[in-house]
Amino acid sequence: MVRVGVIGCGYWGPNLIRCFSEAEGSTVECVSDLRPDRLAAIRNRYSSLQTTQSADDLIANPRIDAVVIATPASTHYDLVLKALQAGKHVLVEKPMTTSTQSSMRLIEEAERRKLVLMVDHTFAYTGAVRKIHELISDAQLGQLYYYDAVRINLGLFQHDVDVIWDLAVHDISIMDYVLQLRPAAVSATGISHVPGGKEDIAYLTIFCEDNLIAHVHANWLAPVKVRRTMIGGSRRMIVYDDVEPSEKVKVYDRGIAVNDSPESVVQMMINYRIGDVWIPRLDTTEALQVETAEFIASIEQAKIPLMDGWAGLRTVQILEMATRSMKEKGRLIEFQGIDGAPA
Amino acid sequence: MVRVGVIGCGYWGPNLIRCFSEAEGSTVECVSDLRPDRLAAIRNRYSSLQTTQSADDLIANPRIDAVVIATPASTHYDLVLKALQAGKHVLVEKPMTTSTQSSMRLIEEAERRKLVLMVDHTFAYTGAVRKIHELISDAQLGQLYYYDAVRINLGLFQHDVDVIWDLAVHDISIMDYVLQLRPAAVSATGISHVPGGKEDIAYLTIFCEDNLIAHVHANWLAPVKVRRTMIGGSRRMIVYDDVEPSEKVKVYDRGIAVNDSPESVVQMMINYRIGDVWIPRLDTTEALQVETAEFIASIEQAKIPLMDGWAGLRTVQILEMATRSMKEKGRLIEFQGIDGAPA
Amino acid sequence: MVRVGVIGCGYWGPNLIRCFSEAEGSTVECVSDLRPDRLAAIRNRYSSLQTTQSADDLIANPRIDAVVIATPASTHYDLVLKALQAGKHVLVEKPMTTSTQSSMRLIEEAERRKLVLMVDHTFAYTGAVRKIHELISDAQLGQLYYYDAVRINLGLFQHDVDVIWDLAVHDISIMDYVLQLRPAAVSATGISHVPGGKEDIAYLTIFCEDNLIAHVHANWLAPVKVRRTMIGGSRRMIVYDDVEPSEKVKVYDRGIAVNDSPESVVQMMINYRIGDVWIPRLDTTEALQVETAEFIASIEQAKIPLMDGWAGLRTVQILEMATRSMKEKGRLIEFQGIDGAPA
Amino acid sequence: MVRVGVIGCGYWGPNLIRCFSEAEGSTVECVSDLRPDRLAAIRNRYSSLQTTQSADDLIANPRIDAVVIATPASTHYDLVLKALQAGKHVLVEKPMTTSTQSSMRLIEEAERRKLVLMVDHTFAYTGAVRKIHELISDAQLGQLYYYDAVRINLGLFQHDVDVIWDLAVHDISIMDYVLQLRPAAVSATGISHVPGGKEDIAYLTIFCEDNLIAHVHANWLAPVKVRRTMIGGSRRMIVYDDVEPSEKVKVYDRGIAVNDSPESVVQMMINYRIGDVWIPRLDTTEALQVETAEFIASIEQAKIPLMDGWAGLRTVQILEMATRSMKEKGRLIEFQGIDGAPA
Repeated sequence: MVRVGVIGCGYWGPNLIRCFSEAEGSTVECVSDLRPDRLAAIRNRYSSLQTTQSADDLIANPRIDAVVIATPASTHYDLVLKALQAGKHVLVEKPMTTSTQSSMRLIEEAERRKLVLMVDHTFAYTGAVRKIHELISDAQLGQLYYYDAVRINLGLFQHDVDVIWDLAVHDISIMDYVLQLRPAAVSATGISHVPGGKEDIAYLTIFCEDNLIAHVHANWLAPVKVRRTMIGGSRRMIVYDDVEPSEKVKVYDRGIAVNDSPESVVQMMINYRIGDVWIPRLDTTEALQVETAEFIASIEQAKIPLMDGWAGLRTVQILEMATRSMKEKGRLIEFQGIDGAPA
Repeated sequence: MVRVGVIGCGYWGPNLIRCFSEAEGSTVECVSDLRPDRLAAIRNRYSSLQTTQSADDLIANPRIDAVVIATPASTHYDLVLKALQAGKHVLVEKPMTTSTQSSMRLIEEAERRKLVLMVDHTFAYTGAVRKIHELISDAQLGQLYYYDAVRINLGLFQHDVDVIWDLAVHDISIMDYVLQLRPAAVSATGISHVPGGKEDIAYLTIFCEDNLIAHVHANWLAPVKVRRTMIGGSRRMIVYDDVEPSEKVKVYDRGIAVNDSPESVVQMMINYRIGDVWIPRLDTTEALQVETAEFIASIEQAKIPLMDGWAGLRTVQILEMATRSMKEKGRLIEFQGIDGAPA
Repeated sequence: MVRVGVIGCGYWGPNLIRCFSEAEGSTVECVSDLRPDRLAAIRNRYSSLQTTQSADDLIANPRIDAVVIATPASTHYDLVLKALQAGKHVLVEKPMTTSTQSSMRLIEEAERRKLVLMVDHTFAYTGAVRKIHELISDAQLGQLYYYDAVRINLGLFQHDVDVIWDLAVHDISIMDYVLQLRPAAVSATGISHVPGGKEDIAYLTIFCEDNLIAHVHANWLAPVKVRRTMIGGSRRMIVYDDVEPSEKVKVYDRGIAVNDSPESVVQMMINYRIGDVWIPRLDTTEALQVETAEFIASIEQAKIPLMDGWAGLRTVQILEMATRSMKEKGRLIEFQGIDGAPA
Repeated sequence: MVRVGVIGCGYWGPNLIRCFSEAEGSTVECVSDLRPDRLAAIRNRYSSLQTTQSADDLIANPRIDAVVIATPASTHYDLVLKALQAGKHVLVEKPMTTSTQSSMRLIEEAERRKLVLMVDHTFAYTGAVRKIHELISDAQLGQLYYYDAVRINLGLFQHDVDVIWDLAVHDISIMDYVLQLRPAAVSATGISHVPGGKEDIAYLTIFCEDNLIAHVHANWLAPVKVRRTMIGGSRRMIVYDDVEPSEKVKVYDRGIAVNDSPESVVQMMINYRIGDVWIPRLDTTEALQVETAEFIASIEQAKIPLMDGWAGLRTVQILEMATRSMKEKGRLIEFQGIDGAPA
């Protein structure tokens, strides 16, 4: 039985508390938050829970095996580091930290101590993304041509990060997972409409190896909510619409047969193929429950979770490159490999 | 009665022939195309029409007042110039030419000869785009924040131009019209999947004056057809979906009230406002008929058409900047003003 | 403070417990259910709640002012009657009872004892239905022509009632409310595909006074979930799509101007008018919270709730007529007035 | 080469003229219409066509092998009979005639004279309906449970027929084809909102053999255009949405496994199965071209077309029953077999 402490009871924390409370294999021992009213609300619902305003007390609590961190991004590095140093396994909200360097530091700490360090990239645990991962792993799409994601809506401005770190982070972690993304360079553009504020609209191009292009459009000022990803391959294409209540993933049996003959380039390079569309049934288990179970299993079986520190770091690295490019209006930022990263 | 000659009977030419045949105020005298079978097909339908394989003969025909050109982009400059030099008014397919410089040369020729030079930016004449123009001109949207266009589908590869010149040209000419676009710089990214071919996917950011950002996603390899534009302002936002059969333009009475107070930046910068949605009834007259009528009226009344040579040039200039930026993976290309352009 | 006891913890009961627990002005004292596991689950979540397997004990509990009943339809009459006779106010699930006669009996009992008797017609408390009620009350639609509802999906078979009593009951109670329905006669058809089972597909026509026709299509065997209502009037029409996440109610400014002149009947009777579409912003308060508040206010202020016993009875009466007609394959059943019903 | 004469140049006639003009194997020799302006418009487009105001002259024309009739329904019987008596093959608009009896008379005449008599049930020749026919013929749906069609829109009132004969006729001819419909009885309801006018809204239930129920909702007063059919079977279900531009037919691999055990009826009668969805690629050839080709082939090869007189008669018979039932507010009309009809 993994005994869990949760730091942060804002928007997402209560979901983590619920999942670790209901999961077989874990109990929530303690919850911390700076705001007493949040703690009171939690005690109301879970009468047996301990609460504290001090994250340090929670981390020091010897009854706790693992710490789950759902606080603003800027606090992640300090809290994760303390928790690891206290010998606790850690599950931390996305983004893992605010820099590649600090993410690297946490990975080293966890590896040295043989502790589980996992990042809450929830989408990777949805039925939709797992199905897309399966289709791409099975080479169902043929050669990959592009990955295009739109994640926009009105509201829920974040104040400590820009729209790339708030919204595009989801798409980058998804593509890291399903594409086995090997980025080569990044170019991003964006704009802020609030004096002194962070960018609220951003467009991000990732040039990848093997002539694959990826793009994310993130926007906090859109009149409608859109969560739409297209993945194009030589044999098949996928449209993944997360706003759809049930038919989220459509697989289009259509593609492009490129004619390699140099002569034909001038005349007719391309043949289109239009076939059936297939909407696979998806596992509808709540993603956070699947993720919770994996965190528990990783602790109990001393194994590496899918969304480990390296997945967190790879995502942070692209976010960092994107923000840097955006500050320079699209200047190309080349990808630098990381020493020690698994191949 | 304006007597028209049409050069080019490929995909679009027959529509122009139909509209100028049926319009009050014009007749089609002559049609030219290099392919005899195309001409035979036209003669079958319009028994009284003259046809020729020689564009020069058509241009030289003294019975003709105006020449309508629907040939590949690379031929536009020569044909338009010859037609103007022969004293004919000209309506030319988009893009006007393949360079800013050559577009400028045509404008000068037409102005010196006091001939009408008009570019076939058909979308500007649709009920949808005219309604959007009206809403923005009336300041219904408040301060403009962004313009985001997606124009994608499978197939119909162009071989002599890239996807920006083929698809994004529509969006650039629309935004030139509805936004009174004042571009400052362009950054574009894209990729080709055909050996030796042109870019088939492209993303184009236009930084405009007054903190307005515009973006176009153009793609020849998409599994579905999307024609979707969002325009965001401080008071209202528009979603224009050209694939919708009837409810093409939706006006969202929602916006963002930015709080200028520097203190509040940290806390609460933004208030959202969510109100009703309004779907205005649109004029359903065929756009090409409206355009045809304007070309005829411009000749008869010696007035400047809405989509004149300058509109054509402004569009070509952005296309040119975009392709240059795309070749350099997003490098920022600053906008250079054009001598002689109207304010 | 109204002290509430809830009978029945199946699918819907937990929602009622949550709303009466969280509402200002009420507390849940006691919950009963025949199944101990259901009671255990409730105690887990609400540690201070009393539970019992005996509905009679709950009804007899002197600490309780009001009884909320969420049990199968066939048990409603007995439970409501006992609760009223014990001096408790009652909120009962739809349908109120299984016959007009028994509904009448409950109304009489409640009126004699001056107790609140309310029926849980939840949809009447949604933002969408309240907006439609407001539009029709304001005569925005002109003369009403038709009301057409489709309520279909796969699964959730009820075993003690047919599809009319399970699904169409919602539409009948909505139309009773928004149309001030005055039924004249009913014709219904349907079919069962389970040996010995109840009808799983049904079509129900209600002929109303003033040349208004209403129709409901209810189906348990549909591949997709549809919740779509159209209301047509001489001036405007409404499409209400409850599956839409946000744009549930669309008001079409279009209608039919009938020419009364008898001569013109032969030639041109009808003029169409096609105007704008308007999507009003809706109140998004959870319907059950609005309803809960009204039940509490009705008790505290001794007033008649909107969804009183008569609303329950009128709905049951049409259900009864529909099932009778359906058994005779569409035979017309004329509406019989009810003595004592308010005008 | 089949030489065709076309009677009637209203809404549909020009499409027939175009298809028979362009088809290999036929030419249009002559067109008749009572209105000289219609004939002038046709001559404008087809300069070699003969025109006449007299249908009798057209029928008597010895240069004509086949007569195509696109006039109002009330004139069909006389015109078809004359054409057959003149030895011409006939293709007639739907509905074939206005009564079962008169349809029977035409079948006899055609059979005696060994002439092709075909009815223009266009939908049967669409890629969508042919695919549905193929799926049902292959028993892909399992046992058929229901067929539910909605065909509604605003406008285009017919003055000589009610909405059943105008709109539901399409659905009845489609279900006759794809279900091999064996009707047992009909119950219909409807209403007219025009003084002295025909019913403009109608609901039609067809009870079929083998516990299959079919229903059509036809409406001239709807704010939106809907063309949606659901077909439910024990193994799979189909949604056919004819308004969709490309994904018209969706096949849902979901169904209901009914448990026959009488004991289980009380408890758990039904198991749901939810699987993938499949959107087959459809042939996009224009339906009228497929139909035209079949008419020509039937004449040339002396074979019976798919949509022969019997298909026309079966459709008319149900329309007749429906209108009779509607006049009596849903009274059940039992199906009477027809002597001489093929099994």
